[in-house]
Amino acid sequence: MGSGRSKMAKPISIYELEGGPNQFFSPFCWAARFAVAHKGLPIETIRWKFKEGDKIAFSNQGLVPVIVDGNKDGKWVNDSWAIAKYLEETYPDRPSLFGGPQGEAAALFVQKWFQTGGPLGALFKIVILDIYKAQTPDLQPWFRETREAKFGVKLEEFSVGEAGVPDFQKALEPLRQLLAEYPYLGGKDGPSYADHFVAGMFMLAYAVSSVKLLEKDDVIYAWRERMMAAYGGIGKNAVGHPESL
Amino acid sequence: MGSGRSKMAKPISIYELEGGPNQFFSPFCWAARFAVAHKGLPIETIRWKFKEGDKIAFSNQGLVPVIVDGNKDGKWVNDSWAIAKYLEETYPDRPSLFGGPQGEAAALFVQKWFQTGGPLGALFKIVILDIYKAQTPDLQPWFRETREAKFGVKLEEFSVGEAGVPDFQKALEPLRQLLAEYPYLGGKDGPSYADHFVAGMFMLAYAVSSVKLLEKDDVIYAWRERMMAAYGGIGKNAVGHPESL
Repeated sequence: MGSGRSKMAKPISIYELEGGPNQFFSPFCWAARFAVAHKGLPIETIRWKFKEGDKIAFSNQGLVPVIVDGNKDGKWVNDSWAIAKYLEETYPDRPSLFGGPQGEAAALFVQKWFQTGGPLGALFKIVILDIYKAQTPDLQPWFRETREAKFGVKLEEFSVGEAGVPDFQKALEPLRQLLAEYPYLGGKDGPSYADHFVAGMFMLAYAVSSVKLLEKDDVIYAWRERMMAAYGGIGKNAVGHPESL
Repeated sequence: MGSGRSKMAKPISIYELEGGPNQFFSPFCWAARFAVAHKGLPIETIRWKFKEGDKIAFSNQGLVPVIVDGNKDGKWVNDSWAIAKYLEETYPDRPSLFGGPQGEAAALFVQKWFQTGGPLGALFKIVILDIYKAQTPDLQPWFRETREAKFGVKLEEFSVGEAGVPDFQKALEPLRQLLAEYPYLGGKDGPSYADHFVAGMFMLAYAVSSVKLLEKDDVIYAWRERMMAAYGGIGKNAVGHPESL
């Protein structure tokens, strides 16, 4: 009946951050989900909400994603980057996330660029109130308090909403120029973990916000379409805001 | 007497942009030089100054670097990125510049980031007058005129000199964070073309300017030291400003 390698693999369970029902808005959880899908491993989502540290106490820390690998006696790994490296090391015969040491460092560079080089800061200013509203009512006061302490201003002052789109688009210029020459951050052959990470950021926005982040003639728009359709459409089929596309 | 592969290879001639005597200040020429050195191929420098288009007329365009490959019936290639791709395709058995398709796209992304994500703009504001002064007297009026037309202001107004260092250091944050975890942009095993490109930008500064761009405790400082010492010290041995380090 064929080799059935994928069918024989047990699921990777991922503790994934949920807002409203099926509203998965953590970019880091999305990166882990894309990475597991890239390896062709079945995914089992375990819903997790902020402050449910007891559910992942076994990982000795309080943040998701955490994966539990059913193929390896329930081994757990936390932190999206550590998860990507774990998957690559543990499943070397499945499609590569990095394509070797140079691609591995490159994927981390892309992540660092997104987080500190402008795009993430610009994105948060657009969607911060949407992320707030995506929390269940019991979590909203805590979310507001912790974020306002971090930002030093009220969420409403930090937020610029749709007016922040030009800044976000400008911050994406290096990605735009790359995608003018290659279909993926991972190059000509398909997505790599660098794509998963950035696509995860767009999935955050898709999950919570109706703001249109990209023009249709932007090469990043077409790339986002490809990423949302990839791996059986786990992005496209997620609960989100189609009107934002 | 051994395999002698390197010794048997004929030189790659590189038309390299020169200011004062032996003052090679083009980051793109440096990237090509590092790439040829990475492949273990002998390098023959052909000095070239702005406006000497006749010397490279054979390449049907007017910019350097241009390489001429003595091993391939004098085949020429222009444009630093095209040169890197040519070397990788033509010499696949020598040390890889990219480490595969994912690393290839990654190297171009790093280049796009440096050029459009902040670092290059910040660097030019520091060293523009130094680049001007590096031109031979006959070229200075032309250099000033063309750059002032591009910037829309006098060079002296565009320049911020040493005062621009904090902005440049801030723009390098993604690189800093990457180098906190990996010794090179190319990852754990050694430099890749991504390193060559960024190192070339530092060689531009080294060639023309005495401004200290990096603090000694910055991980980028140590990386720059490694890159200048690499390939037999072609960076360290170049004519430049040791007081800027």
